[in-house]
Amino acid sequence: MLKLYYSPGACAMASHIALEEAHAEYELVKIDLRKGEQKTPDYLAINPAGVTPALVTELGVLTENAAIMAWLARTHPEANLADLDSPFQFARMQAFNGFLAASLHPAIGKAIFSHPALEGAAKVQAETAALAKYDLVEHHLLKGPWAMGEQYTVADGYLSVFTRWARLNDLLDRERFPKLNAHLNLVQSRPAVIKVLHLEGLQPALASHEPLVAH
Amino acid sequence: MLKLYYSPGACAMASHIALEEAHAEYELVKIDLRKGEQKTPDYLAINPAGVTPALVTELGVLTENAAIMAWLARTHPEANLADLDSPFQFARMQAFNGFLAASLHPAIGKAIFSHPALEGAAKVQAETAALAKYDLVEHHLLKGPWAMGEQYTVADGYLSVFTRWARLNDLLDRERFPKLNAHLNLVQSRPAVIKVLHLEGLQPALASHEPLVAH
Ligand SMILES: N[C@@H](CCC(=O)N[C@@H](CS)C(=O)NCC(=O)O)C(=O)O
Ligand SMILES: N[C@@H](CCC(=O)N[C@@H](CS)C(=O)NCC(=O)O)C(=O)O
Repeated sequence: MLKLYYSPGACAMASHIALEEAHAEYELVKIDLRKGEQKTPDYLAINPAGVTPALVTELGVLTENAAIMAWLARTHPEANLADLDSPFQFARMQAFNGFLAASLHPAIGKAIFSHPALEGAAKVQAETAALAKYDLVEHHLLKGPWAMGEQYTVADGYLSVFTRWARLNDLLDRERFPKLNAHLNLVQSRPAVIKVLHLEGLQPALASHEPLVAH
Repeated sequence: MLKLYYSPGACAMASHIALEEAHAEYELVKIDLRKGEQKTPDYLAINPAGVTPALVTELGVLTENAAIMAWLARTHPEANLADLDSPFQFARMQAFNGFLAASLHPAIGKAIFSHPALEGAAKVQAETAALAKYDLVEHHLLKGPWAMGEQYTVADGYLSVFTRWARLNDLLDRERFPKLNAHLNLVQSRPAVIKVLHLEGLQPALASHEPLVAH
């Protein structure tokens, strides 16, 4: 069976969502990043890069969200998680995911997860740089309603991880990012994503005006 | 015909090498990063992210080296640039490429291409962080002789871009990185790579002990 090493709310949630959307059978293994569990010898034997996610498969270990999600989409064609008939459209999706992985993720990570936390001008500068990447997605990359257009793909779950982080940090302004806000709401309404949030012990990120209903 | 927007010696060289290895027909369009040509309205209409590479195809524009190279490998199966029979091995290659794109490239880029250039302790710190990523490739990710093992793939051209940068900046120590040095030499001896260097107006990066033969 597949086994996903993840950290609650961290970027592995993208692979976790893809597993649920694929209706794959899998186990979860939690890695506590604050305790440094990603740097233990046991975990480094699984992923020498010392980061989550890692997906253990019958054929070996896969790392990197974009690679894991592409593999899940290809091996679960019935779930329709990517355009598998067109190498070009598949590559467009991988370009979108590549931008998130190489450009947007590091930028927002620096702004909100730096140790020690950024302060003052350094924090403003990092947030400004990160939000410029979100602008690019808002105005150019996100086709709407889904990332690639009419059809949900693994790119949507991936994007939602980073819009969720931004919203939780009051950075996903509704005037500046209407499409990204609508997209996050749409993703969070999917049964697979509701289940993932529950399994990771998290709440959905609500837009600041929305009342948080106790449940 | 395919059209590659590239900057000499920059990371677009990975896609350029893949085009040559694929024996694709393509045109080159040079973008001078120092002149800021990647931020002109004309170029932003092609790639709104304002970076190279961008590959114009008959179906539309592709960006991100990892996505471009995967697409070239899939659409030129006769060139044998990836394991196309195994979605798992293909995903392993994409994980390798994803690590380069998301982790190693930003780290070495920060160390050697920051504007204004880093100095003193900041430079040492950035170099140390970058070299730790090269250690990971040396000891764990590069199977040898090629990145994925016995067979050359697009991952090799991609890795060589960053080992070339490191060598040109005296960071690819031969004692510390014997496998990466041997790999770079091997890649630079391939006819496709020799041709790419020539087309981009560049010399191969020679190990410091090698005499630079005038030609
Ligand atoms: N490009 C990688 C990024 C992986 C990554 O940076 N994961 C973070 C969590 S969002 C992590 O585990 N960080 C722990 C650490 O750096 O020590 C991917 O997409 O899989
Ligand atoms: N993840 C992207 C990175 C693209 C990138 O950063 N390209 C650099 C050259 S190595 C660039 O054009 N930089 C110009 C700039 O940032 O203004 C890819 O692999 O295609």
